[in-house]
Amino acid sequence: MRKLETINLNDIRIDDGFFNKYTSLVTKEIIPYQWAVLNDREPTAEPSHCIENFRIAAGEREGEFYGFVFQDTDLAKWLEAVAYSLSYEKNETLEQTADGAIDLIARAQRPDGYLDTYFIIKEPEGKFTNLREGHELYTAGHFMEAAVAYYEVTGKDRLLKIMEKNADLICETFHKKAYQNAVPGHQEIEIGLIKLYHATGKRKYLDMAKEFIDRRGTEPNYLVHEHEKENWTDVFHNPDPFFPAYSQCDEPVRTQKTARGHAVRAVYMYAAMADLAYEYHDEELLRSCETLYRNIVEKQMYVTGGIGSSGIYERFTTDYDLPNDRNYSESCASIGLAFFCRRMAQITHDASYIETMETALYNTVLAGVAMDGKSFFYVNPLSVVPAFCMDHTSVAHVKSVRQKWFGCACCPPNIARTLASLGEYVCFTGEDALYLNLHVGCEIKAQFDGKPVTITVETGMPFQGRTKIMVDNPDGSTGSIFLRIPSYAKDPKVLCNAKILDAPLQKGYIRIPVSKKKETVELTFGMDAHFVYADPEVRADAGKVAVKKGPLVYAAEETDNGKNLNAISIDTAVAPREIFEKELLGGTTVVTLKGKKLLRGDPSDGLYRIVRPEREETVVRMIPYCYWGNRETGEMQVWMREI
Amino acid sequence: MRKLETINLNDIRIDDGFFNKYTSLVTKEIIPYQWAVLNDREPTAEPSHCIENFRIAAGEREGEFYGFVFQDTDLAKWLEAVAYSLSYEKNETLEQTADGAIDLIARAQRPDGYLDTYFIIKEPEGKFTNLREGHELYTAGHFMEAAVAYYEVTGKDRLLKIMEKNADLICETFHKKAYQNAVPGHQEIEIGLIKLYHATGKRKYLDMAKEFIDRRGTEPNYLVHEHEKENWTDVFHNPDPFFPAYSQCDEPVRTQKTARGHAVRAVYMYAAMADLAYEYHDEELLRSCETLYRNIVEKQMYVTGGIGSSGIYERFTTDYDLPNDRNYSESCASIGLAFFCRRMAQITHDASYIETMETALYNTVLAGVAMDGKSFFYVNPLSVVPAFCMDHTSVAHVKSVRQKWFGCACCPPNIARTLASLGEYVCFTGEDALYLNLHVGCEIKAQFDGKPVTITVETGMPFQGRTKIMVDNPDGSTGSIFLRIPSYAKDPKVLCNAKILDAPLQKGYIRIPVSKKKETVELTFGMDAHFVYADPEVRADAGKVAVKKGPLVYAAEETDNGKNLNAISIDTAVAPREIFEKELLGGTTVVTLKGKKLLRGDPSDGLYRIVRPEREETVVRMIPYCYWGNRETGEMQVWMREI
Repeated sequence: MRKLETINLNDIRIDDGFFNKYTSLVTKEIIPYQWAVLNDREPTAEPSHCIENFRIAAGEREGEFYGFVFQDTDLAKWLEAVAYSLSYEKNETLEQTADGAIDLIARAQRPDGYLDTYFIIKEPEGKFTNLREGHELYTAGHFMEAAVAYYEVTGKDRLLKIMEKNADLICETFHKKAYQNAVPGHQEIEIGLIKLYHATGKRKYLDMAKEFIDRRGTEPNYLVHEHEKENWTDVFHNPDPFFPAYSQCDEPVRTQKTARGHAVRAVYMYAAMADLAYEYHDEELLRSCETLYRNIVEKQMYVTGGIGSSGIYERFTTDYDLPNDRNYSESCASIGLAFFCRRMAQITHDASYIETMETALYNTVLAGVAMDGKSFFYVNPLSVVPAFCMDHTSVAHVKSVRQKWFGCACCPPNIARTLASLGEYVCFTGEDALYLNLHVGCEIKAQFDGKPVTITVETGMPFQGRTKIMVDNPDGSTGSIFLRIPSYAKDPKVLCNAKILDAPLQKGYIRIPVSKKKETVELTFGMDAHFVYADPEVRADAGKVAVKKGPLVYAAEETDNGKNLNAISIDTAVAPREIFEKELLGGTTVVTLKGKKLLRGDPSDGLYRIVRPEREETVVRMIPYCYWGNRETGEMQVWMREI
Repeated sequence: MRKLETINLNDIRIDDGFFNKYTSLVTKEIIPYQWAVLNDREPTAEPSHCIENFRIAAGEREGEFYGFVFQDTDLAKWLEAVAYSLSYEKNETLEQTADGAIDLIARAQRPDGYLDTYFIIKEPEGKFTNLREGHELYTAGHFMEAAVAYYEVTGKDRLLKIMEKNADLICETFHKKAYQNAVPGHQEIEIGLIKLYHATGKRKYLDMAKEFIDRRGTEPNYLVHEHEKENWTDVFHNPDPFFPAYSQCDEPVRTQKTARGHAVRAVYMYAAMADLAYEYHDEELLRSCETLYRNIVEKQMYVTGGIGSSGIYERFTTDYDLPNDRNYSESCASIGLAFFCRRMAQITHDASYIETMETALYNTVLAGVAMDGKSFFYVNPLSVVPAFCMDHTSVAHVKSVRQKWFGCACCPPNIARTLASLGEYVCFTGEDALYLNLHVGCEIKAQFDGKPVTITVETGMPFQGRTKIMVDNPDGSTGSIFLRIPSYAKDPKVLCNAKILDAPLQKGYIRIPVSKKKETVELTFGMDAHFVYADPEVRADAGKVAVKKGPLVYAAEETDNGKNLNAISIDTAVAPREIFEKELLGGTTVVTLKGKKLLRGDPSDGLYRIVRPEREETVVRMIPYCYWGNRETGEMQVWMREI
């Protein structure tokens, strides 16, 4: 089966009631804000020093390296976001700024192709001597992604050439005997190399990516023994011994049956594995991807699409261990999950992957950014009591307020590049076919039979179950639109040119044949807010309910419901009520529920009492999880106790 | 009001159906086992090197210091436990072993009185240059406690002299200008100095203890600025900056309204504060003790008497933040809480403190030791799913199986010394009065009117509400027995020589006048197992119930109830049923409850489902919390969901 392709972002324009506010944030707020941060010109953020590091590495400034060992990736992700943003909004000044940054990168690059300002400035003898912690390959991967994105959108290949040179060095280095079985500590280069292969056609990049995957977890285990090498450079000075599962190198990837270790590393690797499974017709590797995917969605994922439930080591833990108040569930991990799901859907043409991707994007990824685009969550808990989130405690990583810019800034630029490339998630192209994955308003230029077709999508999603597709097919070419019918769509009805289309679902898509010059397709379905229960094996959710409406998970906030949300229990015999509130949070459907709230009684009864607390009737108001934390600071809770 | 005194342990013999197994464990198992560990002769434990460190410090062996900076305290606590154990069971071999150890300590002590093998061996120039982390004063405090205990039980003053010399050095050093406002990072020396004052009559020890308390948190803040000193020695190489609340030095102790920071440090300090408040007639300090006590019991204590709810930094967090599955609730912290409560009761003659002490002792402290005396809990969670307690996660500190002997072995010897000195908790002596605090079978030698009186206590506690006191008063002296009537006693009835005694409670005690040569007092009361509810402000317990019977909190275990205890909800309309099971865990009352258990349904329904899980009727079996983890490994849970 041929893989479905992501669309060139120049060929899609998002215009959507729900997403416009986010995509416009990227252009108007996040990209300029991040550029100011990268240049240490943003007073509200911690100094980044990122651009300055490049200047020092280029020999144009005196100074010391400052920042995390992977500080360079902030610039890479910014460039990638800029590339995507230029696809939907030309901006010459921005493009010139980006070109200038690329020139600086070129000047910082070593003659042999090496590029990593931490090691160039701080540890020039330490290059590639600590793959576990050094992040050079991770950084390179991000620059490769940026280079390809910039090339695809602008046609400019300067950064592409820089990264080809860098990739050539990496391919050469990692085939030397000293690097037998060497793999990156933090996966990402695999994705970068695969993209670089597609942009350049150089097969050796693809082969190198495959080797990194095949080597991982095999003997001799490079990462496990790396610190025993004579020339090893200690980067993190971490007194705790390395545990191989953290970097998914405790066994070969093909025998791994459960998602493990650092969640971002894991899903970035799975995304690359999916790509490679397709490129090499490697059925075994594809089965591994399916096994790992199923372990995640069946046993290790939050209802919000969050993954990585341990605050310590930002990692997957074990099946059904999904605590709601101390989890990490990093924004970047859900982004990586979306990468993985998208690839699996491209390969298998199966929309069930899209549904997981949608859950991650609409809930955890969007929650990662404030509605003003100026503050961000790394960590995405499902239950927060602000007073309990103290520094120097087990939940110090949980924040009740989004933060301006982090010292370790991986999430904000990652969210930016993901939102800026939304078009790659919205649809895929196949042979004379367009796959509409997400119900997002947009205009798409496709080709059927080699002839241009314009497809315009209008939708009421995610608040209303109706999507209208208008096909402008001037040549009357023959093709198909595969429209995803979400599993949550109740009684979906498809009208083609006002006539009911009664066709079977094909892995979650309905095929709409196109041949007329103008076609109009209308999909309507029920999508009432409803209760969700977890598999009782999830100890943390037993006896609790969540509320979903379509792809959106809902959350109760203190600002609507008063303090102590866990004192509330929900009467699930009464169906949730919905109200669309135009003025609230840019316009949103609010859900109200009937419930009871424990009364505190007399505090002088003491902390522990024989008397059962009284309950009073209450009405609970919930908003989409992605919007939480955009009003007054307070408690938030997704899983509510059931009466 | 005159303080009540703890009894000399030579004057009390415990003989109790519930406690005998523990006290005999101390003599038969724990003390010999610990001695083997201290000498690195116990193959099941991590090497301690404790005795070896003393030999090296004494110049009798070559070698390096090994262990924690406070490794010496293992020996101190062992000696203290030995002292207590000798009070109820003479053992010449053991006493000779202890004398030998004391000789070794004498040889390791420096001529100026300094005694701490870490610094003697490893950092001879670093003495008292890192009070925050160095633990020298903490270690000294434990040796002072041991010295006094050994002196009081055996009459031998060799260790007492050693520690007087050490205390003299400390008093001198900490009055030097360089040590202006200096205080220990880990409180404990204060308790030691106060005990040393009582044993020796040297007032300067008491004054030094008072200064350490009064200095704490005042400007210039020694601990906060200590690392800026030129001669500072870095002990822990902790990259995180010191936060003063950790060591309770963020403000003067008298203005502290909430318990904060490292829980063991906190309660050891409060215990010393209580002592000092009494000795100096310092009403303000006593009010501070009361305020801190009330903050703990009204807002920061688990139903089991556990305190310190954060696994990170083993610390108090904030009011009502009492998570059940990730808490630390160190055994040592509950021991310290018992120290504090006992002192407050001695000073105020108020049995409400005894009740808190009883809760801590009967639940968290006893849970700390296995019924074979060979393994120990540091951490005392109220909910455990063994599979979730993985290394390298947010709950890595939570163990589902007691451990043999820890690298950091503070808890096992602390539990041993506490159990060995149980008599000090069971009763107090007043003027012609004996206060019976805990309902524990024993024989007590007291004095009324200067004449010997023997009081024998028999009890069915903690499983039955009946206690019988036989007074043998050969001289017919006049005196009083103050018998604590626990707040959980329902319809208590006191018979004095078979006649009902109708007297008012005096702060939780009933006064029984004694004058006849033989008196018999019989107390009976109801003590059915019952449900307990938490103040709904405790988010973690909202909608849940616990079960108590008298002082005992109950726990459900997987071995009795199958996997997934949180799938069970309890029908509180049905009263708990009790069965005494003679063969179970040395004989215990088991409680059964009616409940319902969520059925898993079809796992292929997925992790999150629209269908509400079915429930089936079930009977839940619970055992005393202190006994959990003594059978098959499995889940454990105290707070159960209410139907």
